[in-house]
Amino acid sequence: MNIYCEIKLSPKEKTYLRKKLKNEKIVFSDELAKDKLEHFKKADICFGNINPNWINESNKLKWLQLESVGFAPYVAINKTSIPITNLKGFFDVPVAETVMAGILSLYRGLCSFVYLKQGRVWKGASLRPTLKTVKGSNVLILGSGSIAQYLAKILEGFNCEITHLVRSTANFKHCTTSNLNEVLTTSDIVIGCLPETPKTNNLLDRQRLNLLPAHSIIVNVGRGSLIDEKILIQKLNDRTLAGAVLDVTHNEPLPSDHPLWDCPNTILTQHTGGGFEGEIYGKIDFFHNNYNKIKKGEILNGLVDHNKGY
Amino acid sequence: MNIYCEIKLSPKEKTYLRKKLKNEKIVFSDELAKDKLEHFKKADICFGNINPNWINESNKLKWLQLESVGFAPYVAINKTSIPITNLKGFFDVPVAETVMAGILSLYRGLCSFVYLKQGRVWKGASLRPTLKTVKGSNVLILGSGSIAQYLAKILEGFNCEITHLVRSTANFKHCTTSNLNEVLTTSDIVIGCLPETPKTNNLLDRQRLNLLPAHSIIVNVGRGSLIDEKILIQKLNDRTLAGAVLDVTHNEPLPSDHPLWDCPNTILTQHTGGGFEGEIYGKIDFFHNNYNKIKKGEILNGLVDHNKGY
Repeated sequence: MNIYCEIKLSPKEKTYLRKKLKNEKIVFSDELAKDKLEHFKKADICFGNINPNWINESNKLKWLQLESVGFAPYVAINKTSIPITNLKGFFDVPVAETVMAGILSLYRGLCSFVYLKQGRVWKGASLRPTLKTVKGSNVLILGSGSIAQYLAKILEGFNCEITHLVRSTANFKHCTTSNLNEVLTTSDIVIGCLPETPKTNNLLDRQRLNLLPAHSIIVNVGRGSLIDEKILIQKLNDRTLAGAVLDVTHNEPLPSDHPLWDCPNTILTQHTGGGFEGEIYGKIDFFHNNYNKIKKGEILNGLVDHNKGY
Repeated sequence: MNIYCEIKLSPKEKTYLRKKLKNEKIVFSDELAKDKLEHFKKADICFGNINPNWINESNKLKWLQLESVGFAPYVAINKTSIPITNLKGFFDVPVAETVMAGILSLYRGLCSFVYLKQGRVWKGASLRPTLKTVKGSNVLILGSGSIAQYLAKILEGFNCEITHLVRSTANFKHCTTSNLNEVLTTSDIVIGCLPETPKTNNLLDRQRLNLLPAHSIIVNVGRGSLIDEKILIQKLNDRTLAGAVLDVTHNEPLPSDHPLWDCPNTILTQHTGGGFEGEIYGKIDFFHNNYNKIKKGEILNGLVDHNKGY
């Protein structure tokens, strides 16, 4: 089979992939000076986030393995019969740990201690009354996918009360969009773990953001489009929201004149939430595992439902 | 009964205490212009960390409630028959959460993101390979008291392998000083939660610090005397240790020319680990609860064993 590799790999990582797929012809996009589309059209398999329009032009493609969980750019393709797999589950641990790092840093004042260390300033005991504890917090997790579930398990260790926003019903504490507004009014921490779909777009709009208590914080590790960012910035600046941990934003990279850089009590993790040492090798392993499944005719991991969009 | 109050309280907090102890005579140390010792000698009860030498001079004192867990300054007093209670258990939640905030910040690169936000610099994806996940780490917790136990529960949610350093034996995974050195060689994270006693002093000495893998990090929320700080600083600077989260240090406040301010991958939380909004009211409640126990002849919470020193 012909494999077209869109994912950017170092020479070492390419060797690792080649060893895994000894008998296949692999073309690396970044090694092609021209005619990339022509090469792509010869491929049976594509690994990496290819231009969605190209998929419509291929008559050979049998499977596309994305290197992200995000699927939004592929919703509009015509050839919905081609199986597309994303990295569902792959980023659960790093993303959940970044969420906890962000929340705990806000509650335990860690950003202040970074600034104080820079200036060699000891404030010590005077800061103690400004610190909070996560224990017992009402946490609303928007979503119930694998990241949301892993996060919930961690938050239970902190004795938090967890509610998930789900589509219809669930056998754990949950709400739906019909009673979301009510739940927002008593939430201490809101964590967005939702894919980008028409239904999640601007879910946290002005009205909903205004329902949150002033002591509450917002975390977003799904997609920036979840939140009305203009209102969020306003609320952070006028302290009607206590803080935010944003791994995703409307614009990425964030332009240097963007007002989010100046927002108080705001942690910007620059879309690194899913990152970790060995991430690329892990992605190759995920792809290789699915490759073996394709060969055996087994069901692929992370198969995306075109209708749902995730 | 006469109560001598050494703990510093705001006018509002004093009113709160007075309401709790309507029928008692309370003297606040900070309201006395002179003759503090004379007033103390008339007290049946003392609330707050009084000069240890004064205890020997009192013939009336029936109970001392400290406002700390730390007991070291009181080990040398002669009148060991006077019950002294500390705030055992009171700081478990904030301290454990500060520990997790520090560890996760180091692993998920949060200090870098604070600096980058200051400079409005987007580094994004290029930072992903520098991040680590806590999951599956070998965590050695020095101690098995209430903070250590609460921490262990949280760390289980992160799927860590936990070993406690204990005095003799325990019904959970543990080591003692006899095999501590061996455990250090395979530890990813070492967390000091020990009281200051002759046995814990310099427990992490040069030899033991040198046994730690270069990728490991050290956290200390007990007392600074646990660690040979000079060696720790050296190892942080030459990257034979990957990081440190220090709530306690040999000198507090840390002088502005102290080399710890410059150590890389080091978070200094300035002895605020136990701090939280409402901390002082909580201390008053702890004292009041023990006061009720004294009246009823019940066993006090946080009674310190003079021989053990905690």
